[in-house]
Amino acid sequence: MLDTTAATRIQSVLSSLDSALADENLDAALELFADTCYWRDLVSFTWNIKTVEGKDQIRDMLGQCLANVSPHAWQVDESEPAVVEDGVAEGWIRFETAVARGYGYIRLKDGLIWTLLTTMVDLKGYEEPAGDSRPLGAKHGDRQGEMTWKEEREEELATLGFETQPYVVVIGGGQGGIALGARLRQIGVPAIIVEKDERPGDAWRKRYKSLCLHDPVWYDHLPYIKFPKNWPVFSPKDKVADWLEMYTRVMELNYWGGTEAKSAQYDETTGTWSVLVERDGQTIELKPSHLVLATGMSAKPNIPAIEGQDVFQGVQEHSSRHKGPDGLRGKRVAVIGSNNSAHDICAALCESDVDVTMIQRSSTHISRSESLMKYALGPLYSEEAVRNGISTEKADLIFASIPYALLADFQKPVFDEIREQDADFYRALEDAGFMLDFGPDNSGLFMKYLRRASGYYIDVGASQLIIDGKIKLASGSEVNRLTENSVLLEDGREIPADIVIYATGYGSMNGWAADLISQDVADKVGKVWGLGSDTPKDPGPWEGEERNMWKPTQQKALWFHGGNLAQSRHYSHYLALQLKARMEGLSTPVYGLQTVHHKS
Amino acid sequence: MLDTTAATRIQSVLSSLDSALADENLDAALELFADTCYWRDLVSFTWNIKTVEGKDQIRDMLGQCLANVSPHAWQVDESEPAVVEDGVAEGWIRFETAVARGYGYIRLKDGLIWTLLTTMVDLKGYEEPAGDSRPLGAKHGDRQGEMTWKEEREEELATLGFETQPYVVVIGGGQGGIALGARLRQIGVPAIIVEKDERPGDAWRKRYKSLCLHDPVWYDHLPYIKFPKNWPVFSPKDKVADWLEMYTRVMELNYWGGTEAKSAQYDETTGTWSVLVERDGQTIELKPSHLVLATGMSAKPNIPAIEGQDVFQGVQEHSSRHKGPDGLRGKRVAVIGSNNSAHDICAALCESDVDVTMIQRSSTHISRSESLMKYALGPLYSEEAVRNGISTEKADLIFASIPYALLADFQKPVFDEIREQDADFYRALEDAGFMLDFGPDNSGLFMKYLRRASGYYIDVGASQLIIDGKIKLASGSEVNRLTENSVLLEDGREIPADIVIYATGYGSMNGWAADLISQDVADKVGKVWGLGSDTPKDPGPWEGEERNMWKPTQQKALWFHGGNLAQSRHYSHYLALQLKARMEGLSTPVYGLQTVHHKS
Repeated sequence: MLDTTAATRIQSVLSSLDSALADENLDAALELFADTCYWRDLVSFTWNIKTVEGKDQIRDMLGQCLANVSPHAWQVDESEPAVVEDGVAEGWIRFETAVARGYGYIRLKDGLIWTLLTTMVDLKGYEEPAGDSRPLGAKHGDRQGEMTWKEEREEELATLGFETQPYVVVIGGGQGGIALGARLRQIGVPAIIVEKDERPGDAWRKRYKSLCLHDPVWYDHLPYIKFPKNWPVFSPKDKVADWLEMYTRVMELNYWGGTEAKSAQYDETTGTWSVLVERDGQTIELKPSHLVLATGMSAKPNIPAIEGQDVFQGVQEHSSRHKGPDGLRGKRVAVIGSNNSAHDICAALCESDVDVTMIQRSSTHISRSESLMKYALGPLYSEEAVRNGISTEKADLIFASIPYALLADFQKPVFDEIREQDADFYRALEDAGFMLDFGPDNSGLFMKYLRRASGYYIDVGASQLIIDGKIKLASGSEVNRLTENSVLLEDGREIPADIVIYATGYGSMNGWAADLISQDVADKVGKVWGLGSDTPKDPGPWEGEERNMWKPTQQKALWFHGGNLAQSRHYSHYLALQLKARMEGLSTPVYGLQTVHHKS
Repeated sequence: MLDTTAATRIQSVLSSLDSALADENLDAALELFADTCYWRDLVSFTWNIKTVEGKDQIRDMLGQCLANVSPHAWQVDESEPAVVEDGVAEGWIRFETAVARGYGYIRLKDGLIWTLLTTMVDLKGYEEPAGDSRPLGAKHGDRQGEMTWKEEREEELATLGFETQPYVVVIGGGQGGIALGARLRQIGVPAIIVEKDERPGDAWRKRYKSLCLHDPVWYDHLPYIKFPKNWPVFSPKDKVADWLEMYTRVMELNYWGGTEAKSAQYDETTGTWSVLVERDGQTIELKPSHLVLATGMSAKPNIPAIEGQDVFQGVQEHSSRHKGPDGLRGKRVAVIGSNNSAHDICAALCESDVDVTMIQRSSTHISRSESLMKYALGPLYSEEAVRNGISTEKADLIFASIPYALLADFQKPVFDEIREQDADFYRALEDAGFMLDFGPDNSGLFMKYLRRASGYYIDVGASQLIIDGKIKLASGSEVNRLTENSVLLEDGREIPADIVIYATGYGSMNGWAADLISQDVADKVGKVWGLGSDTPKDPGPWEGEERNMWKPTQQKALWFHGGNLAQSRHYSHYLALQLKARMEGLSTPVYGLQTVHHKS
């Protein structure tokens, strides 16, 4: 319900909050919050990505941050509607701090703050040149001796990393590294992106040929240049790859393709990394102030130890090493695992007429892509949402405004609906022997992704192949051992196989830090990803945010960046601001740096 | 003034128009028009680009078009504001025809129609797949044997022009050909763009190094993908080139770079062109149904016959052949001419420290780029316009809604303002000896562009070099003759010269048709560009539209496309619709095909 009084109610609370915070009167401030309350901050108060839950935590955060942050000018954003729904008044807010402009979202219950999102928009004096302040381009008047755009760009490409050093090195040039690189360039932070593949997009090009994005286009935009209105809903992989390549070019990123990062060491005394990279057969030392690992969530392959691996006569490989179906017709392939990779690989083999069996050891969550789009993403990311005035940027903030502690409750009804709508589909899958789940608390796919980044498949076609028996399925049993030419299951079934593919997942992203820097640093930083939900593969205690992602870690000047296209887009903004503030020598006291509870 | 009754007034007129046209009651329809009235139609009524002026012409047009067009459902667009300003009620309108959806703009004076713009938005049943109807991309379900996006694209590139023929061949792969190519692709018209340079953007890359666009970014967007908000106001030429190359790739155009069109012949009996092109040393025959010349407004160089051209010992070249200042330091260059090219070339030479003299034979209009942006383009194309809800597409239509017959009157006050604001600048130029004008009727730059595409310079810096004497100026005299090493003026001045550059303009674009097809066809088609304003270089009689541009010509299946970035963007839409309608076999009776009054 649209409610013109909602804005008034919110403004009243904001005005009181403004006064209380200006007076550093924590008691008065906390009186404005409900007993159950959440304050999620993206960089603006905490120089961290942090959710504080309940009045005690909020008091602690304010006690430590307030003097430094000097928040003020809290206002309802009058240009956006405030609404009341189910007794909750909610709307968009603006505020300022000593050094930044902020934007956020607030929800009131009975006139008290239930959830509050505060985010940093830009740093005063360091705004991105855009819109009214975009660069002029032309150099009018007497230009004798001045360099042109092209000459400046060529000089930059020739000198950065050699005569001059970037402030940031990003390892990994997938969508994560590219989105961050674009943000850094626009905000004036010199950066080099190091990528082992030759061309931007190669990581997509090398995947199996029928792969398309599993998320719809409205969820996938990069910063600055949106996909056009004629772009497919689910983009074919090579089309995404071309887009990334062109984006990298027109956004003028310093993208070192065909370059492998060999090692990195941080010198605490000089505050500089020494990053050795190999490029065109040459070893180059880069000396940035900050190192970002954007190497993707698929780090060190997990291969379970199985009896008989030394006996098996065929090929064994981890899913990440699998090159696709070419040349495999006539072979029998056993894929151990039943998540996204397993489904993708089985579908690709099946479409190339290869005999393939999926070995499902435990239950998997399946969501049909269309249903996810319609019920889960649609309200925020769809053509209808765009028509309703919900831009991608607003959608990102609305999603960010729901504290992770509440998110499972928000998600359950969505997946209850999906389960009901797709009942026939799920029944057919179960009839084919497939073991289904909807997550430990029935909260569905997104929570599995946010907690463990595994345990699900977004169905873009493989499920029907399983239902039809075109992908054979052996489910409900662990693997007992390999023989010379088969996989033996615990229940005695034997799957003949020339090739065994382990689609058995990955270790934590800090495995990359172990490879590149040291096991000590990897251990110091600890497990990357997961919320501490105390559900399978996401052990507690509760952390309230993704571990180590897009925010300071226990290793100074080391950062992790990535996630899906939407996260790469949204969180690259906050990571770029954190790096920019440090480059400009602003004070960036981090509140609530995470404690490490798990090494991997 | 925002006036809620304006919409009501407009709707009342539209409803009457709706009834009158439905009844084919021309008298009733014409009663709704003011005595002085203009109806500009872009394809929706006339299958032409046509302005009919006054009641008699409107009666004639309706008499011939009405039965075929069946216009109906005339409505104010309620989602846009209608306004009353200076007694004129104006606003956006929708309508439909038998085969198309239309959109337009109307102005009422004393309740009667003063100007009416009707444009075709899309053809029913042949809408572009975009937004809600965008392609799905992923091929869900059982995909065995189906081709992927990449395989389909590769097959298209390998077969189109060989085993299969494009419906359209576009000669010229600059911004005009690229914008049209993108429209045709989206609307499902197979097309090949033939371009002699290797890569999209090369025409920009090859220009002198300090060149930037003279028009600001808001005016320059291509269809479908807008420049991002961080894009420079005046884009450096190499940055535009990279954008065009990127755009060509991600819009999946069939762009034959490094390919030269050698000849084209139309076979009336089969309705097919035979276009011979040379690509990679191979002659290929393309057999499209339609041929579009998008070769640019700079066609066959004009070089005046001057006594002594056979005596002069140095280099003589037309501006289009000039390669820029490299290697010319120490030489003395005389540039004959004082329009855009002359200024650009002189500035480039000057910035490279070459001794250069501009020989100005007649007066030139100068507008400072900043002033054009502020006073002339700003209301429609600027950051402020975007904030005011005027998208590029709306701006294009508002500009199109002013009949050319009225445009000079609309433009005069703008250039009066510029003349006043930049009085110091103009005085300094005159003090330097520069001969200025503001057009024959003081209507300024745009009218010169629309009438003759010459006679002006958009100042991005060269004028200051003239004011400062860094570009030498010899003005006020015709050239008498060349000596062995100088240019002698009528008034006796002698300009020593090692190189003479003729920045003396171009012939009409039908010169391309003469080269490629035949002089007969070029003569049959006649002069391209110009309104028939009976002003210098735009002889009468009055035509009311740009001659031969974006619309049917006297040569069946031959079209001309181009203009600046804004025209390439806007009119490519209407040209694409005309071609699509023909491809689908719709009836496209052309009303008012232009008569040819001038051969060049």
